[in-house]
Amino acid sequence: MAKTIRTKVRPTKSGAIPEGPEPTEGSRVAFLFDLDGTLVDSVYQHVLAWHAALEKADIELSVWRIHRRIGMSGGLFLNALLRETGHRVNAEEAVRLQQWHAEAFLRLTPEARPLPGARELLAALSRSGVPWAIATSGRLATAAPALATLGVPPGVPVVTRDQVEYAKPDPDLFLTAAQRLNVPIETSIVVGDSVWDLLAARRAHALSVGLLSGGYGQDELERAGAYRVYDDPADLLRHVDEVGVRKIVE
Amino acid sequence: MAKTIRTKVRPTKSGAIPEGPEPTEGSRVAFLFDLDGTLVDSVYQHVLAWHAALEKADIELSVWRIHRRIGMSGGLFLNALLRETGHRVNAEEAVRLQQWHAEAFLRLTPEARPLPGARELLAALSRSGVPWAIATSGRLATAAPALATLGVPPGVPVVTRDQVEYAKPDPDLFLTAAQRLNVPIETSIVVGDSVWDLLAARRAHALSVGLLSGGYGQDELERAGAYRVYDDPADLLRHVDEVGVRKIVE
Repeated sequence: MAKTIRTKVRPTKSGAIPEGPEPTEGSRVAFLFDLDGTLVDSVYQHVLAWHAALEKADIELSVWRIHRRIGMSGGLFLNALLRETGHRVNAEEAVRLQQWHAEAFLRLTPEARPLPGARELLAALSRSGVPWAIATSGRLATAAPALATLGVPPGVPVVTRDQVEYAKPDPDLFLTAAQRLNVPIETSIVVGDSVWDLLAARRAHALSVGLLSGGYGQDELERAGAYRVYDDPADLLRHVDEVGVRKIVE
Repeated sequence: MAKTIRTKVRPTKSGAIPEGPEPTEGSRVAFLFDLDGTLVDSVYQHVLAWHAALEKADIELSVWRIHRRIGMSGGLFLNALLRETGHRVNAEEAVRLQQWHAEAFLRLTPEARPLPGARELLAALSRSGVPWAIATSGRLATAAPALATLGVPPGVPVVTRDQVEYAKPDPDLFLTAAQRLNVPIETSIVVGDSVWDLLAARRAHALSVGLLSGGYGQDELERAGAYRVYDDPADLLRHVDEVGVRKIVE
């Protein structure tokens, strides 16, 4: 658990705030990042890949409805599908759909693309001694190319769907990521692009930052509990002092 | 111009509203529909097709930013691009980009898919004597397959980018569509999925209905001036009495 020195900081009579003591370990906060739509520009490709997979199985679902479900656990996604289309998906079909989705995704995105500022943000946090981890509803096999392109150094915890019982909006992925970092979840900040990230953050009792880079609207993210909303990782890096990082080494 | 009989309709003392007289020509309103994302499920494919075209030209732009520009005039789209990427697009490059976009779009969508309820809504309006037209920022060549799959009958005005000087958010497309229908724009209802449709509607002094089927959030559509917001054409058909169609023949 990160040790922090807490001293009361009072405004002076003139209203100016004197410089407070710096925390000993660079930061009082830690960041728990979602992957798709948050660090890599892959949400729309995942959406159309699911659309193609469902179409192949003769399941009709409008593309925007898939977009609004992206990032939630696969099991809940299939339940939602049942609710919206009346089509019940059995275990065998679920495996086939996942396979078709993975194939279509690779056709649409031969290579992973970091979002603007993603690499810079992660590197700056590392240089500044701010702990960070990645927690994704995706599986390690599909996440690996994205992690490689982001330059995630060894030692950074990466929690994938395979490693927890329940994915988002259950809090398990983020709770596990905080545990691996050995930081309290209450002072961790979840960064995600979908309402499922933000709902999971609230269940975990973490604050959250919403990014518009997954294509949700600002209001949707705020209503799901985002503490702050930024455009993308580059925009978060520019405003990182708003969410508890007092000094960043860019 | 549609002739209408206007008679004051007052609630009775018991609070019940007596049946008012029906307008002579079935409806006091007319509908002016956008096409992509409003009647056909094609927005996400257009978004990724633009992304592919820009990538081919070595212009990097996040996918969600393209999504937020879709539906606006091509000229303004390229201006916005310049603002966001610093890349100036000359006339020759613009033509090439459009060509690459069209090719990528065809690869992604070999056939046009009507949104749920689109065919039913248009047919019900026709049966009910409610005038309607289509006004799209797209060009006739790319719109033709969508129009065919929707079963747009001959005689329904279809106004495309090729036919007006300025596309959305300028009001020309919708003004021209109302003129072709010979209905006043003030009693016309613009139906669109993007903020550009709704902004164009306000400039034209028409009311507008926003549909979520293009992937914008409800709040974004309401802030751009939507009078009402529905999920998709099927949802609009279910609530069409809320926007001035007193009797619909389903």
